[in-house]
Amino acid sequence: MNREFALIEKLKKRIPRTLQGLIPIGDDAGMITLAKRTGLLVSTDAIVEGVDFRMSGTDPALIGRKALAVNLSDMAAMAARPVAFVAAAGIPKGLGERWMLRFHEGMMRLAREYQVACLGGDLSRAREFFAAVTILGEAPKAGAVLRSGARPGDWIGVTGTLGGSILRHHYAFRPRVEEALFLRRHARLGGMIDISDGFLQDLEHVLRASRCGACLDLEEIPVSSDAMALARGDSPRALEHALTDGEDFELLFTVRPGDRKTLERLWPRAFPNLRLSWMGRVTKGRAVVRWQCGGRPMRAPKIKQKGFSHF
Amino acid sequence: MNREFALIEKLKKRIPRTLQGLIPIGDDAGMITLAKRTGLLVSTDAIVEGVDFRMSGTDPALIGRKALAVNLSDMAAMAARPVAFVAAAGIPKGLGERWMLRFHEGMMRLAREYQVACLGGDLSRAREFFAAVTILGEAPKAGAVLRSGARPGDWIGVTGTLGGSILRHHYAFRPRVEEALFLRRHARLGGMIDISDGFLQDLEHVLRASRCGACLDLEEIPVSSDAMALARGDSPRALEHALTDGEDFELLFTVRPGDRKTLERLWPRAFPNLRLSWMGRVTKGRAVVRWQCGGRPMRAPKIKQKGFSHF
Repeated sequence: MNREFALIEKLKKRIPRTLQGLIPIGDDAGMITLAKRTGLLVSTDAIVEGVDFRMSGTDPALIGRKALAVNLSDMAAMAARPVAFVAAAGIPKGLGERWMLRFHEGMMRLAREYQVACLGGDLSRAREFFAAVTILGEAPKAGAVLRSGARPGDWIGVTGTLGGSILRHHYAFRPRVEEALFLRRHARLGGMIDISDGFLQDLEHVLRASRCGACLDLEEIPVSSDAMALARGDSPRALEHALTDGEDFELLFTVRPGDRKTLERLWPRAFPNLRLSWMGRVTKGRAVVRWQCGGRPMRAPKIKQKGFSHF
Repeated sequence: MNREFALIEKLKKRIPRTLQGLIPIGDDAGMITLAKRTGLLVSTDAIVEGVDFRMSGTDPALIGRKALAVNLSDMAAMAARPVAFVAAAGIPKGLGERWMLRFHEGMMRLAREYQVACLGGDLSRAREFFAAVTILGEAPKAGAVLRSGARPGDWIGVTGTLGGSILRHHYAFRPRVEEALFLRRHARLGGMIDISDGFLQDLEHVLRASRCGACLDLEEIPVSSDAMALARGDSPRALEHALTDGEDFELLFTVRPGDRKTLERLWPRAFPNLRLSWMGRVTKGRAVVRWQCGGRPMRAPKIKQKGFSHF
């Protein structure tokens, strides 16, 4: 048995049988079945050494966790329940088996937490490490929430706080799966996205897809303590971090006007430790973003770059 | 709009709407629905520059084709019908947009041929090019064919010819999807796999999974003309190529004893241009491979390395 197969055997053994789907891992494909009348959601997201994380000084378990977490976040963005995933990894020659086992451990721990099955994978030799995960989820056929559903008058909501994720949040974030399902259950959602490119950039994705504009309230922006830390207490700079830093992986969504009240009532009981902010409203005007503060129009805050580019 | 989004827009426009699933490409996930009572098969396979292909001197369309084709072959190995895929690519800085468009063209042309939907993708910056494709397929819940189903007495069949794929076949091969569905329809299949690591190596995968051995007929090995070309007419070396070269992507399967006759009758009508060979029989004895020639036992042919390692 060569090294590839030996490593695969070890990784396989560390996946609980209950998380392997209908076919034990190691065949040419994995298998699951879906409930009747559900739509199958599919998304893929790769993380690459030096772009999405640093190898040196990082616990490989955090990297494995992140490779899966960014994909769970994509399912949350659709208000879909993630059910299974596969992972392809490129492995540089110098990378030891212990590193891979630890990477795998971080990934599988999150898989267990979110109850998603691991249906298989693929290992390749590569010059730099990468991990491409594909996630499968389910939602009622008409229940997936797209970017394109925002309408003028909708409220714009955001979970959690924004900015400064580079300090730790981009490894530690919790994909907002339950939160998204809760939102779908209790409100008429318009458009939704997970914030990976930065708030303003991702808002633009929603607005363009929905052919709408937005009016934002400066004082409602939930600036994170990490954004403040990065800005060393300089408020305008902290604000800029909150608006443009990538990898918050919070939900940015719109709801029909009447549903803000409902959510304000129900949310704190369901998620007492997670802030819910109303950043403004959807307006007419294609991808035009206006600003106000204390109810009065103001100029847009100064910003160098709208978002984080993974590319 | 930055370069990432501009390229994504261009790639998107080149995917026919009919091949995009239920949600237009560009949201956080794609969606399809499956027929009732089918199992969902999932597999992922990455190809990496310098390992699975050379960048210089290769038409990018062939590389794009291969990235999808190896995954279609995995669905064939399960006797599943491929229905959709997603692709994550890592793109080195120097790689021009024209290269990517041509890569994409090769991939989409094959997608159209096999009628598989493209549900989305992900682009990352990377130092070397890679493409990780995940394929989804369907099969009746109890209809997927595993590696572990071989039984002593089964005939061992192989489609096409073997060896020398490095000369061209590893780019040009046709995934044996229809052939696999035909086999499932007309025979009681035991174990099945697609030959990617080399015949002997992949046979061993089937035998180990099935806890069986095999007895092979030397004179039945379908040596390809490319294996002969590589060996410059040296028959023992050509044989070695046929037994050990990777990336034939032919089907290696076993059928219950009575079904060989049925297939011998039906196969030539269905696939007049594709050889079907019977390489021997499954026996008892865990992963033990014996050889015979003209019905008489013989020593195993001399072989340096059992298979091709992608790792």
